[in-house]
Amino acid sequence: MALIVQKYGGSSVSDADAMKRVAKRIVNTRNAGHNVVVVVSAMGDTTDDLLDLAGQLTNQAPDREMDMLLSAGERISMSLLAMAINAMGVPAVSYTGAQAGVQTDKHFGKAQITGMVPERVARSIREGQVAIVAGFQGISSDDDVTTLGRGGSDTTAVALAAALNADVCEIYTDVDGLYTADPRIVPTARRVRQLRQEETLELAAHGAKILHLRAVEFARRYNVPLHVRSSFSTKDGTWISNAPANPELKGLVPDAALATNQEDKVEAPVISGIAHDRSQDKITIVGIADTPGKASRLFEIVASAGANIDMIVQNVPTSGSGRANITFTLPQDDAEKTLQAIEAAREELDFTDVRYNPNIGILSLIGAGMRTNPGVSAKLFGALSNAGINIDMISTSEIRISVVTKLDDLDNAVRAVHSAFGLDSTESEAVVYGGTGR
Amino acid sequence: MALIVQKYGGSSVSDADAMKRVAKRIVNTRNAGHNVVVVVSAMGDTTDDLLDLAGQLTNQAPDREMDMLLSAGERISMSLLAMAINAMGVPAVSYTGAQAGVQTDKHFGKAQITGMVPERVARSIREGQVAIVAGFQGISSDDDVTTLGRGGSDTTAVALAAALNADVCEIYTDVDGLYTADPRIVPTARRVRQLRQEETLELAAHGAKILHLRAVEFARRYNVPLHVRSSFSTKDGTWISNAPANPELKGLVPDAALATNQEDKVEAPVISGIAHDRSQDKITIVGIADTPGKASRLFEIVASAGANIDMIVQNVPTSGSGRANITFTLPQDDAEKTLQAIEAAREELDFTDVRYNPNIGILSLIGAGMRTNPGVSAKLFGALSNAGINIDMISTSEIRISVVTKLDDLDNAVRAVHSAFGLDSTESEAVVYGGTGR
Repeated sequence: MALIVQKYGGSSVSDADAMKRVAKRIVNTRNAGHNVVVVVSAMGDTTDDLLDLAGQLTNQAPDREMDMLLSAGERISMSLLAMAINAMGVPAVSYTGAQAGVQTDKHFGKAQITGMVPERVARSIREGQVAIVAGFQGISSDDDVTTLGRGGSDTTAVALAAALNADVCEIYTDVDGLYTADPRIVPTARRVRQLRQEETLELAAHGAKILHLRAVEFARRYNVPLHVRSSFSTKDGTWISNAPANPELKGLVPDAALATNQEDKVEAPVISGIAHDRSQDKITIVGIADTPGKASRLFEIVASAGANIDMIVQNVPTSGSGRANITFTLPQDDAEKTLQAIEAAREELDFTDVRYNPNIGILSLIGAGMRTNPGVSAKLFGALSNAGINIDMISTSEIRISVVTKLDDLDNAVRAVHSAFGLDSTESEAVVYGGTGR
Repeated sequence: MALIVQKYGGSSVSDADAMKRVAKRIVNTRNAGHNVVVVVSAMGDTTDDLLDLAGQLTNQAPDREMDMLLSAGERISMSLLAMAINAMGVPAVSYTGAQAGVQTDKHFGKAQITGMVPERVARSIREGQVAIVAGFQGISSDDDVTTLGRGGSDTTAVALAAALNADVCEIYTDVDGLYTADPRIVPTARRVRQLRQEETLELAAHGAKILHLRAVEFARRYNVPLHVRSSFSTKDGTWISNAPANPELKGLVPDAALATNQEDKVEAPVISGIAHDRSQDKITIVGIADTPGKASRLFEIVASAGANIDMIVQNVPTSGSGRANITFTLPQDDAEKTLQAIEAAREELDFTDVRYNPNIGILSLIGAGMRTNPGVSAKLFGALSNAGINIDMISTSEIRISVVTKLDDLDNAVRAVHSAFGLDSTESEAVVYGGTGR
């Protein structure tokens, strides 16, 4: 008997019929002899409807009240799901974030989990009940309702799985796993059966939207095995774990995952997939004085503006000019305030110009053993060159190479690289995209 | 500076525009120099929508999950209302039943308030914030969300007013006060400016639907002055209090209420109004043995079935037969299970027949000084007789006379009595009816 945490996103519980389908799946898992704890997001359009109502009243809603409002969404979905499961003869009880012991800091709208004390959930397990927990929400030390921001429900599920020492955390979504590239761009993309946590982290950090970065970080830190799969089929999805799976999970876990052998994977480069990101912009500071401390002062100012920068390139200054160019990428939502902060510090930073380019795309190739294998980058650049695509910036890590292209070139770049690395499947696999991002 | 608790029903906050109107009224009250605590129900159709969703999943939802589900409705309305008030420049913070310290027993769906510890609400008042509290909900000692059942939001408001020692509890609704009779039946009904708590209790208990019985009982026990008024006008409504009003409330309270003098009212009968009730049925036990204990045993059995009986009449047995008839009225929802319980005890109770009549109506005339003034009942019976209406059962209290009529005669009976007691207004006052019953 295993303990399984299952997380269902908003598109999996969009209406009563979808809710019944999810309830049936939970009941089946239980009837197979496992304990089940469920984390659920708000139903389909609930969040948008609530935001729309708030927007009719004000465009400056206090964060605390916004969290109170949005947290109602999971109360609705979780109690309805508990009803549906009870109607199938299995006892189920729903818990709010507070009742499930999801303790957070006080940052409304993007709270971080500071503690997990799921006593009532554990008691439900002991008493043979299915516990249904509200995703996306917690409670602060002031006893205020908080929400965890984007990817919050995934994070709730992984944190709960860690605290309960669950055997696996299943993330149900409207896609049947992680793909070698976004199938909307590359119809021949293949579903990945298995991924190591580090590669998943890079994929999530560089544009793959199925699994949220925070949840993957949590899974890695507490070594929670993840299984990303579709709530619309019983097909195996993508298994994410560094450790061999618990043999008790046989039947719940793809055989490939059970046979995992880490050594197999680091000898030759193994490409896990290609992520792409359209949500970053590029800023170039032209002619900044090439004196010690100027660059670090620039990034202090950028950080104070709240921007999370990704790639950085500093050009070598032209001999004798004493001035360099610094280029970096950042989320487009942070661009405006960052440009303002830099402009305000123009005198102190001593630069000649700022250039802003919102029309960029980032392609990231992710896989094990990249840095030790120079053939990987050669093949990447060759594929892009053959497709007539210019590369602007490059950054690499142990298991990733990212390049910046023109936004209009991004889709072609993904297809060219996917093909060059032999990732194309012989048959297209049908998938559905959507979801609320909680 | 007074402390005012305002309660707004679902029809007062049915959409964003209504919400803004309510916010404006709250802001005006505050700008007039008063502290305001607000209790709000779920928006218009929210409750029905949630019940509909639950009905698509099961017709046997666990009570705990149903309460969890329905409590989401007030979270939505209270946080939106707080946003709307903040948008008008006044700080406002919303609190769930749990956060506002509404402690209840564990009877999901019809919980009773067992304690009020509104510490956070009191702190908000000290800090100059408008506190918005979820009506209809509380928290049990098991830390489970409970709902208070019908009239729950009114009860929350009155209990909060009592705990905070508020100067007045204003109940906003879609009607501008209590009327001498239901204006849908008697178009010439007059709005009552002022009522004593006891009379209001009788009106609420005998069919007047504007104020819920539980809330009135609470107001009477803790001596909370109530003001029932419309959220769609600034007109004074009906003031309910036995004590003279706080002179600080001048301007918030009808002048008549400020001038209240209790002695004025008990000398001659003063008719407060006419309530009517279509929701009761009648059961007659025919030929029950007229031996000691049989009647009390009958009512033990009825009470065990969970029925709340209202009027009882026992006929004098025909000389020598040793058998009597007992007739009583009860809520129609309780009729079926009560008839089953009586049938099951047929042998023990030793009766010859049971008759069931769902087609009855009850008219109640309420006012001070009735019992001491025989002219009142004479006038009542005369009016009904002139209108050709037969009376079936009669029951009286210190301040009430109730009669049972045929259901089809009830409207005519109300009009005839209203007119006979000179309650008709010279002009009709427009009112709107509706509401969610929370």
